Amino acid sequence: MRDRVAVLEQLGAAHRHLPLRPDPHERHQQVRAGGFDQRPACGAQVADRGFTALTVEGVAARSGVHKTTVYRRWGNVAGLIADALELAGGEPWPVPDTGTIEGDLRALARLVADGFADPREGPVSTAFVSAAMHDADAARALHAFFMARHDQSSAIVTRAVARGELSADVDPAEVVRAAVAPVYYRLFVSHEPVDAAVADRAAGGALAAARAGALNASV
Amino acid sequence: MRDRVAVLEQLGAAHRHLPLRPDPHERHQQVRAGGFDQRPACGAQVADRGFTALTVEGVAARSGVHKTTVYRRWGNVAGLIADALELAGGEPWPVPDTGTIEGDLRALARLVADGFADPREGPVSTAFVSAAMHDADAARALHAFFMARHDQSSAIVTRAVARGELSADVDPAEVVRAAVAPVYYRLFVSHEPVDAAVADRAAGGALAAARAGALNASV
Repeated sequence: MRDRVAVLEQLGAAHRHLPLRPDPHERHQQVRAGGFDQRPACGAQVADRGFTALTVEGVAARSGVHKTTVYRRWGNVAGLIADALELAGGEPWPVPDTGTIEGDLRALARLVADGFADPREGPVSTAFVSAAMHDADAARALHAFFMARHDQSSAIVTRAVARGELSADVDPAEVVRAAVAPVYYRLFVSHEPVDAAVADRAAGGALAAARAGALNASV
Repeated sequence: MRDRVAVLEQLGAAHRHLPLRPDPHERHQQVRAGGFDQRPACGAQVADRGFTALTVEGVAARSGVHKTTVYRRWGNVAGLIADALELAGGEPWPVPDTGTIEGDLRALARLVADGFADPREGPVSTAFVSAAMHDADAARALHAFFMARHDQSSAIVTRAVARGELSADVDPAEVVRAAVAPVYYRLFVSHEPVDAAVADRAAGGALAAARAGALNASV
């Protein structure tokens, strides 16, 4: 158990960032030493920082747990990631609460954009998404993680309904998906740059669609 | 050159499907024989069908080109994929033209959903997206490919503007992104199931956002 915590702690700064919140710990030097501080020159180069940057050896070295112990317990990086995501899904997550649905959705989309742009944590978060694309256990873990995050983030929408900003017919999780999907699309599909303006427009699009009834539960 | 065509032909059914159009060739048996016919039992298992399903050996065997030739020319699967995408980006693509913006955006989102669900071509398309996540050349190639597809698909929006369905202030590529992003988000990030209803709702959300001015070029 002590080994588990030590090892997963190495992924902790990242797993909290999917969908992402500010890292409460300052561990810049530690992660730089791990070789993750490779800021991309352009959107397309984000791929360099993905799955291949995260190795059992690296995680073992940083956690002080012998790599054979890591291999025995988790098998490979995908196994490690699946376990870390499982722990992370149960964590409470500070959902944006700015007082307006517009502010909350912008904050949510910006958390995603900022988290993946972070030179410390972006590469590890990217590794999680990448691992899920070619490992079924990691995919199931990432799915469960996002279901938990959609559920937590739905508070943004239910508060807006309570304030009279949106109709009670809206599907909260669908608004959350719509607010972040264009950011993820640029990051992991079209490999286009992401900035605050991209996040704001994603949030604005989701809000307009929600107001128009296009994201209602019955649609 | 003959070898190049023979090898890339093996990826052809897939690269045409990103963002996707119906496969004009019936090569079910051939691709089944290649071991790609692994229909997922649930959304999360789509990861099983990804990058790892596509090997140099498999492509070489199916194309009749010796694997050492493939290795020498492309280095690895990511190199193959980058080359295939480069060819594909220049191909003309039959953009939906149903007569209404609503019909066109639905058709576009459904092409994406149907293409990745196809047991023949979905796995290879998935491999392309996956490869771009951990190979910079594949990422650049996928980026260029999507830029070309955004550009081609923008005709959907410019026709809608000409018909008076949307304001001329709208950003065509942004409408295209909004219509497909929720489908890709479920496929490759949250690993949720995708069906025609999901595609229709993504298209409907994009259209509502566009009509509200939330996807204008100046926003």
